[in-house]
Amino acid sequence: MVEYDAVVVGAGIIGLSTAYHMKNLCPNHKIIVVDKMRAAGQGNTAKSAAMFRCFFYSTTNLTLVDSSVEFFKHVQEKLGVNLKIRWTGYLWLFSEEDYNQIKDILGTMSKLGLTYQLYEERELAEKLEVRTRVTQDEEAKIMNLADVYTGIFIPKAGSIDVESLVKFYEVEFLKLGGKISYGTEVKNLIVEPSIPLGIPNEPHFWQESRVAGVDTNKGTIKARKTVVCIGAWASKLLDPIGIDAHVKPIKRQIFCVKANSQPLSKLLWTRNFNKEGCMPFLILPRPKVYIKPALEEEAFWLCYGDEFPRAYKLEEDPQPEEDFYRYGIYQIVTKYLPQFKDSTYTSAFAGLYAVNTLDKQPLIFEQNDLIFAGGTSGSGIMKADAMGRITAALYAGKPYAILYGGREFKIEDLGLKKRKIEPEKFVI
Amino acid sequence: MVEYDAVVVGAGIIGLSTAYHMKNLCPNHKIIVVDKMRAAGQGNTAKSAAMFRCFFYSTTNLTLVDSSVEFFKHVQEKLGVNLKIRWTGYLWLFSEEDYNQIKDILGTMSKLGLTYQLYEERELAEKLEVRTRVTQDEEAKIMNLADVYTGIFIPKAGSIDVESLVKFYEVEFLKLGGKISYGTEVKNLIVEPSIPLGIPNEPHFWQESRVAGVDTNKGTIKARKTVVCIGAWASKLLDPIGIDAHVKPIKRQIFCVKANSQPLSKLLWTRNFNKEGCMPFLILPRPKVYIKPALEEEAFWLCYGDEFPRAYKLEEDPQPEEDFYRYGIYQIVTKYLPQFKDSTYTSAFAGLYAVNTLDKQPLIFEQNDLIFAGGTSGSGIMKADAMGRITAALYAGKPYAILYGGREFKIEDLGLKKRKIEPEKFVI
Repeated sequence: MVEYDAVVVGAGIIGLSTAYHMKNLCPNHKIIVVDKMRAAGQGNTAKSAAMFRCFFYSTTNLTLVDSSVEFFKHVQEKLGVNLKIRWTGYLWLFSEEDYNQIKDILGTMSKLGLTYQLYEERELAEKLEVRTRVTQDEEAKIMNLADVYTGIFIPKAGSIDVESLVKFYEVEFLKLGGKISYGTEVKNLIVEPSIPLGIPNEPHFWQESRVAGVDTNKGTIKARKTVVCIGAWASKLLDPIGIDAHVKPIKRQIFCVKANSQPLSKLLWTRNFNKEGCMPFLILPRPKVYIKPALEEEAFWLCYGDEFPRAYKLEEDPQPEEDFYRYGIYQIVTKYLPQFKDSTYTSAFAGLYAVNTLDKQPLIFEQNDLIFAGGTSGSGIMKADAMGRITAALYAGKPYAILYGGREFKIEDLGLKKRKIEPEKFVI
Repeated sequence: MVEYDAVVVGAGIIGLSTAYHMKNLCPNHKIIVVDKMRAAGQGNTAKSAAMFRCFFYSTTNLTLVDSSVEFFKHVQEKLGVNLKIRWTGYLWLFSEEDYNQIKDILGTMSKLGLTYQLYEERELAEKLEVRTRVTQDEEAKIMNLADVYTGIFIPKAGSIDVESLVKFYEVEFLKLGGKISYGTEVKNLIVEPSIPLGIPNEPHFWQESRVAGVDTNKGTIKARKTVVCIGAWASKLLDPIGIDAHVKPIKRQIFCVKANSQPLSKLLWTRNFNKEGCMPFLILPRPKVYIKPALEEEAFWLCYGDEFPRAYKLEEDPQPEEDFYRYGIYQIVTKYLPQFKDSTYTSAFAGLYAVNTLDKQPLIFEQNDLIFAGGTSGSGIMKADAMGRITAALYAGKPYAILYGGREFKIEDLGLKKRKIEPEKFVI
């Protein structure tokens, strides 16, 4: 049996970015990626809305996202790999109450050099034909909707094609001599004594022990380090060896509505916000339903990230719920944007977010030769490159990672023991 | 259907202490306790080693334990309820390395008025016939055992009879007019809209919603507040409504060895440590196997709290593992205490610890009319009274709880949002 330097579990965006950067840092290492799916990024990576914004209050978030997005830009513009980045911008609608709460935060962010543009209620009503005073409607009041008071437009934000991004990391990893085994499902992590004594039923609790690889449906893979990048599935592999990744899986649904009426088409191709000449990624005031312009499909993607009482639940094949659209998203969207009246979705899908319930920020740590990277809590795509570099640097035994652009990042800041995360105050 | 003010899920030690103190604070409230077992404290409460020590570095720990133990003492000495408290003391054996690490901590604790007594290696060897220099033995070296350098005797520590303690809270709760329904298994928590609108499939995500009681095998119980005290089982009820209690279940095993040889009997009845005239609760240096003098049974209880790679796993009926004793505990104990040579256990049992993986300290919080109290991480018995008072005070809408002895405790210090816990540096 071949022993690898590292086995990376998961060929989603985090696993592939990590594997690529590991191979970059350690070109001579034998590294294998395994995934139960038949190809790259076919798990929850494929279920993402694939949006990004370089606009966060938390410097941790900002650093991880901005360096990743700059790298994606470099890949597209300098390396000539089309990642289909669309600079749609984010347009964030706020109620007066909510705006007053973030006003000071915005000031701080502005001083840090982050740019944004404020839109007054009247401008929004004109440009988007959005109904700003929804609470004149009795139903909207019952539904706790809030009037639109102002809009914040964030220009350094948009969408990316996940498939192309995943493919980029996969191809580059393979070019460097990395190995990938698809259709390979990890059944469990292997734990062995660090110094085997040849006595029955090792390891015993008085022995030092370590994760020594994985058992899969295609046999055992031994490795010096086992790197787990399985997102929402973390507890399935880690609970059995008593490691808490603090990740809970939660279902997220996306409903696709075609812009097949004149009002919807007009909305999708709203001009004067961005170079794409389209409606920006739009976030409604309350509840924060969001709408992505899906230009290739001439469609909108509608989504809402509900929490309590939404279950934390691992599901092999999570399904979108018709009622979630019908009694939820549709009701809210049509109050603000009558253009959606009588629209139905033509397709829908659901995936599992990997929520880090500590602080909703990523977690990267090493324990007993196991490296875990995950808990990206819905921003795995936009942080993917930084996540890969940090995890790879941890693998290479370094205290700091060098992010794209040259910035140093202290690895243990994302760890468990000395975790140091600036809390985010600017959340959807 | 009767609507209760509160339904308390779980008639273990935390649930019953909580229910009793709730009824004390709110005598007119209709409160019902439900439990799937046929009687009080039959779940993991019954699987405890039932030891306590009023000796912690963390003031949080110390306050919770000391006030609880003082209350237990009061119950036994003033109320005349025999809780079979035995002041055996703890005798904590340290290697030189480990002792040097806690020396300064001990100094701090001493200044706080905590009393302890140091025993030199020689005294320990004489009094207990413990082998202090185990590493002269080749096997012990391979097993990473450490020589005994010093012993710390903690007098304010001992054991309590859990059954009597549970019974005390149960009887008092019933006396106050509380209701208990045994054999009643909660299938799920009920979530309802705060303001029902009579539309299909409520609550929708734009509605405020709340936990409104429980569905059980004996029907539905509605309540204003639902108080969940189910220890290791927390995630089974809370995951389905998207609340993370940060509790993982981990198996703990206890092996009972009869003191049926002359050397073992002599060890059990070691004099001059305590008024019981018995060996104190003994903690070996490394690994920290511990031995409880179980005087009623003329026996020792042997235990070790192993971590990685011990699984986090919910099991209906966890079983002790013969190998854990044979290749683990027995091997270690006999190196230090040859008196145990050739001993076998006559009985053994296993239970599930509810480990709070945030910081191994208790967690008490309220969300959407659900109150959670748990995560006591192996010290549920010794903190039970304080846990009950704090949870009851939260239920009664107070910011502070009054612990036994009159001390105020800020409830949110044990919560999630403003958690403020002094870390423990003195752990088994």
